[in-house]
Amino acid sequence: MTENLQVLIDSIPQGKLAESNYRLASTAVPELAKGEVLVKTIAFAITAGTRAGLQGSASYAGAPRTGIVMNGTGVGEVIESNDPELPEGTKVMAPTGWQSFSLQKRGQLSIIPGGQDPVHYLGPLGVNGLTAYFGLLQVGQPQAGETVMVSAAAGSVGHLVGQLAKIRKCRVVGVCGSDDKCGVLTQRLGFDAAVNYRDANYRQSLKEATPDGVDVYFDNTGGAILGSALFRMNVGGRIACCGVVSQYDTDSPEPGPKGVPGLLINKRLTMQGFLVFDFEDQYEAARREIAAWLDSGELVSLTDEVRGLDAAPGAFVDLLAGGNLGTRVVRLD
Amino acid sequence: MTENLQVLIDSIPQGKLAESNYRLASTAVPELAKGEVLVKTIAFAITAGTRAGLQGSASYAGAPRTGIVMNGTGVGEVIESNDPELPEGTKVMAPTGWQSFSLQKRGQLSIIPGGQDPVHYLGPLGVNGLTAYFGLLQVGQPQAGETVMVSAAAGSVGHLVGQLAKIRKCRVVGVCGSDDKCGVLTQRLGFDAAVNYRDANYRQSLKEATPDGVDVYFDNTGGAILGSALFRMNVGGRIACCGVVSQYDTDSPEPGPKGVPGLLINKRLTMQGFLVFDFEDQYEAARREIAAWLDSGELVSLTDEVRGLDAAPGAFVDLLAGGNLGTRVVRLD
Repeated sequence: MTENLQVLIDSIPQGKLAESNYRLASTAVPELAKGEVLVKTIAFAITAGTRAGLQGSASYAGAPRTGIVMNGTGVGEVIESNDPELPEGTKVMAPTGWQSFSLQKRGQLSIIPGGQDPVHYLGPLGVNGLTAYFGLLQVGQPQAGETVMVSAAAGSVGHLVGQLAKIRKCRVVGVCGSDDKCGVLTQRLGFDAAVNYRDANYRQSLKEATPDGVDVYFDNTGGAILGSALFRMNVGGRIACCGVVSQYDTDSPEPGPKGVPGLLINKRLTMQGFLVFDFEDQYEAARREIAAWLDSGELVSLTDEVRGLDAAPGAFVDLLAGGNLGTRVVRLD
Repeated sequence: MTENLQVLIDSIPQGKLAESNYRLASTAVPELAKGEVLVKTIAFAITAGTRAGLQGSASYAGAPRTGIVMNGTGVGEVIESNDPELPEGTKVMAPTGWQSFSLQKRGQLSIIPGGQDPVHYLGPLGVNGLTAYFGLLQVGQPQAGETVMVSAAAGSVGHLVGQLAKIRKCRVVGVCGSDDKCGVLTQRLGFDAAVNYRDANYRQSLKEATPDGVDVYFDNTGGAILGSALFRMNVGGRIACCGVVSQYDTDSPEPGPKGVPGLLINKRLTMQGFLVFDFEDQYEAARREIAAWLDSGELVSLTDEVRGLDAAPGAFVDLLAGGNLGTRVVRLD
C-alpha cells in the first residue's frame, strides 16, 4: 500500500471516445480526515451512462472536466477507519471511481451484508439491478401475458430487465447487436425471442418476434431502435426511457424518432423518463426481492470481467461499441 | 329542400393542402331508411386534425379516399325522422361532413339540450372543449401554482386549454403565430404571457415568459415548438400530446425533436398521447362543468365564422397556415 493508481480523464472526447482520452497516474494513498474511511477497491463497474458525463452538452452528470479521476461505482473493503460504524474489514459499495484507493464517508456508501458476493452490488443488487427493477416494474407496469421489449438486451441493465419480465410472466423480446448475444438471451436467460438490430432484416425480424405487438418497451438506446419500437407498440403501451446509449458516444446526437409525437397520440402511448436515484427510499425492499430471485436461480447475473486499471479505458471503448455481455466489471483484487 | 350541396375530396394533397383538392357537388337529398333521421346542417367545424386523414401515411383516421364528402363534425336540426326519440326540431351534434343534409342515426349523434347555442357544441361543449378538458386536467394533471404552456394557443383547443389552466390557478403561457393573437390571449383570455413562435427571438422570449420553467406542456403542434418546450420543462413535468399540427400539412413529416428521449430521462418527464374518444364515458360530467364555466363567464369561447359551403376549402387551407382565432366554424344557416 504505497501508491494509489488512478485513471484520469485526460481530454474530452471529440466524436467517439478513445483510450487516449484517459491516462494512468500514480499518487500517494490519501490521508483520512475525521469521519472518513479508506476503501481499497475490489472491483468497479463500467457503465454506458458515464459516457454522457463526458459530453459537452448538459446531462444529468453535469459539465465534463479533465484531470480528475474517472467516475464509477465500485465495491471495496474498508482498510482504515475513522468511523466506528464502518470498522476495518467492512465491505462497501461506493463511488470509488477508477482507482485503487479512495476516501469515503457514511451517507455516500452502502454496506454490503456478509455472505453476499460484493460484485453482485455492481450488478443485480447495485445500480444496474435497481434500474432494471424500478424502470420495468414501476415505470413500465407490465402485466402477465403482455409483451415486453428491451433494447441493449444483453447489457448490464437489459439482461436483468428481460429476466424480471419473465418472472412477471410476460413474453420477452430482446434487441441486441450480435447473433451470439441473441443466443445467450434465448438459451441461457429464458427470453422468448431476440433480434439483432444490425441485421438488414431487423425491422421485419422484430415484427415477426412481436406477433401481438409490444405493450411495454424498456428503452436503453433511443435513436433508431426506439423508432422501430414505436411502430410495434400496442394502444395504451408504456415506454420506460432509461438510457440513450445510441447517442452517448458522439458529440452530435441524432434527431429524435419520427413517430414522436404522432404515434404517441394515435396509439395513446406513455413515454416516461426515469433515474433510479428517485427510488432511493425503496432500494432496500427491492434488494431483498432481487436477492431472493438470485438465490432461487430465477435471476441470473451475467458479468464480463477484465483485470487491472490499465484495462479499464479499452474496456469502456469496447463497451460503447457493444462488446460487453452483461455487466462489465474491472477487478483490482 | 331540393338538393344536397356537398364538398367532396377531389384529390389527395401532395405537399400542402390546396383548395383545388376539393370540389363542390350537388346531389339529391337522401331518403330515410328505418331508424334514420335527416339532419339539416346549421354549421360545421374545421379542425386541423382532419388534415391527418388526408395523409398517405397511417393515421388514426385511416387511409385517405377521394370522391367522398369531406369529414367533419357539425350541428344541425332534425327535419325528418324515423326515430321517435329524435323528433323533428331536435338539435343534434353529428358527423355531418361538409354538406347541407345528412342521414344520421342514434348512437352516432348527441342531442343538444334546449337553451344551448348549438355552435357551442362545435367549440367548448364539443370535441374541442372535451379535448382541452381531458387532455389538460387528466393527462397533464396541473396543480395550482404550476406553469402550464400550450401551443397553437389561439386555436380551437388551445384557447380553451389556457383558460382551463387559469381556472385551476396555474400560470399560463401560450405559444401562437402572430402578435395579434398574443394580444388576444393576454388581453381577452387572461393568459399570463404569450409568445410568437415566428419571432427570431422566440426561444429567448419563451425563456423569459417561463421564469420558473414549465410543469405541464399541452402540445398541439409537435415539431420545433415541442423541441423548445422540452428545454423549458421542469423535473417531473408532464407533456400531454394532443396533436401534431406542424406535421399535418405535408407529405414528409420532420424527424422528432432532439431531446427525445435524452431530456425525458434527465428531467424525468412523462409524455402521454391521448385521443378524446377514450374519455367518452365521462363526456356528460365534463359538459356540465364546462357549461357552468361558460355561464359564469370564467370560460370564453372564441369562434371564427365563415359562411357557405364554397368558403370551406379556403377556410381550411387558411386554418392550416394559422389563420384562425379560436374555433373555425362554417355556417350554412
